[in-house]
Amino acid sequence: MSQSHVFTLVLAGGSGTRFWPASRKGRPKQVLGMGPDPSQSLIAHTLRRVASLCLPQQMIVATGESLVDVTREALPELGPEAFIAEPIARNTAPCIAWGAQLIARRDPEAVIMVLPSDHHIADEPEFCRVLGRALESAARGTITTVGIEPSRAETGYGYIEAERELAPGVLAVNRFEEKPNRETAERYVASGKHFWNSGMFFFRAQDMLRAVEQHLPAVHEQLQIIARAAKQGLEAEREATRHAFAAMPSISIDHGIMEKVQPLAVVPGSFGWSDLGSWHTVWELGKRDNAENVGPVDALFVDAQRNLIEDLRTNKTKRTVALLGVHDLCVVETDDAVLIMPRERAQDVRAIVDELARRGGPV
Amino acid sequence: MSQSHVFTLVLAGGSGTRFWPASRKGRPKQVLGMGPDPSQSLIAHTLRRVASLCLPQQMIVATGESLVDVTREALPELGPEAFIAEPIARNTAPCIAWGAQLIARRDPEAVIMVLPSDHHIADEPEFCRVLGRALESAARGTITTVGIEPSRAETGYGYIEAERELAPGVLAVNRFEEKPNRETAERYVASGKHFWNSGMFFFRAQDMLRAVEQHLPAVHEQLQIIARAAKQGLEAEREATRHAFAAMPSISIDHGIMEKVQPLAVVPGSFGWSDLGSWHTVWELGKRDNAENVGPVDALFVDAQRNLIEDLRTNKTKRTVALLGVHDLCVVETDDAVLIMPRERAQDVRAIVDELARRGGPV
Repeated sequence: MSQSHVFTLVLAGGSGTRFWPASRKGRPKQVLGMGPDPSQSLIAHTLRRVASLCLPQQMIVATGESLVDVTREALPELGPEAFIAEPIARNTAPCIAWGAQLIARRDPEAVIMVLPSDHHIADEPEFCRVLGRALESAARGTITTVGIEPSRAETGYGYIEAERELAPGVLAVNRFEEKPNRETAERYVASGKHFWNSGMFFFRAQDMLRAVEQHLPAVHEQLQIIARAAKQGLEAEREATRHAFAAMPSISIDHGIMEKVQPLAVVPGSFGWSDLGSWHTVWELGKRDNAENVGPVDALFVDAQRNLIEDLRTNKTKRTVALLGVHDLCVVETDDAVLIMPRERAQDVRAIVDELARRGGPV
Repeated sequence: MSQSHVFTLVLAGGSGTRFWPASRKGRPKQVLGMGPDPSQSLIAHTLRRVASLCLPQQMIVATGESLVDVTREALPELGPEAFIAEPIARNTAPCIAWGAQLIARRDPEAVIMVLPSDHHIADEPEFCRVLGRALESAARGTITTVGIEPSRAETGYGYIEAERELAPGVLAVNRFEEKPNRETAERYVASGKHFWNSGMFFFRAQDMLRAVEQHLPAVHEQLQIIARAAKQGLEAEREATRHAFAAMPSISIDHGIMEKVQPLAVVPGSFGWSDLGSWHTVWELGKRDNAENVGPVDALFVDAQRNLIEDLRTNKTKRTVALLGVHDLCVVETDDAVLIMPRERAQDVRAIVDELARRGGPV
């Protein structure tokens, strides 16, 4: 498929707390170098990965106003016009609808792929093949998602059920399923027709704008106000956008659009996908030694198994980190914080952030 | 008792490995600020504690040649004449005998108290009362030790059995007992006549020199050679001392003298004594919060119990150490190392030092 009408809309509004102390209020996960290749930020990896599918001047990054600077720093090769800032966070549906409108203004025939900014992909060639297939499906006029073939009975993700083939490698979505319990998740994995919801969406701008008009009229109405204001110039548009976001409902693209549009297509794929959801995942994806420890080469593990050491200090003075007789720990160090916890508590890092906030200090 | 003949001989030759990464090959435990009052080094506390018993110019510190500089730095108020350096480590008997000889040259009527340099004492007034009693016993011509009234069935210490009273608060020692097994230790504690060997010894210089002549003739012989060389001047004495230490047997004062002399006195005492044997002990002596954690006031303990955080960085930049969901850990941080281990593994720190040595790096 030709790149000429392909646009990428990267969602980079997240300000997660699960990666404290690496991620902070003003320095979210996507701008950090994390996972197996920390030499680049996750968002830089995200754009680099799709360079064969989309021209760089057609890559748009949607983020929050307070995150624009740090996001631009992470993507120095993109010009200022590549960044759009939501005045107020309203979850994914208003953001994607707004992005589709802005892109449609530049190219009414645009085909857009919406990508999360903070995932990890192990098999990039296969990833690009799957995305190419999804773009083709979208170009044929069907809103399309990518579904991850489940490798385990994960209870932390939503699932997509799909069976009937619409085109080679493209299935018709029956329904979206909420996060299942263990038993249901096991049934899903065995079924062969359930896929993890990857948060990647593909559509022609016009198809999305029509779906918004039909299923989210309150969002559609505000977009119309923005479009009219845009004709008065940039300042008026900016002002209207601020009011529009305040007026729009906060709703996810899944609930607002995907669960309602028909037909909806899914392209199943298997390319070593990870949402890098916690420090536990960083350990899972890391290079492990014989005792399954992940850490700097000069770390010392004596009688210690399955630990993660992440040294994220900016000034890496020579330093020996020694673990003796401990197992399944995460040790994360930045310039101004150290976190130590069992890997199985990685989902609970928010408790630290909450406690810091309670003390009134910086988070 | 008058201070005029009292001398203190502090044994500061140790280069333990159990306090890595705080203690290093060239920076042993005694010169570190550790335990409940880290504002001074342990050896500085040792001398300060006995200031009411001994004049400062009669305090002698025996250490190894490689440790003289770092030991002097820890005791800036003492002049260079206060430090004597063993050319070769030969355990405690040759060192104490040599120290007694040097002191006897200054004051033939000297009464010497030998003190370890790296212990902690909680109740200092009581400590001084007990030491005063031991000095008086020594001044009466009996080699005397201080025995700690056992507070638990400790299997890591040697014991002294004593019963018959020689003077008020002074008992005659029956025998020295090796480190007992659990059952024997429990019997000792119940007996009321067993005391921990504290490593503190009190004697007139002449009594010790006579005991050495009788029980350690090989040491006595070398001391005679040193004494003769001293008459030729400092350089000759230094040379003779070097040869003498090479020729002397390596033997502890316990095995070489204390187990043999008769009579031997012990003054039992109870003054919150601790040998500060490991990081576990630092936790025991530390100020604990409600969850029995010991650490900096700005440390964050969430769902974490009975942990120790020791921040020994020289440049304490603002830093949050957060422990989430862990218990009974020791976390020790210096400028160039971090150690994490369960408290119950505190005796095994040597394994880290050994591994570092194996790698050929600095220890």
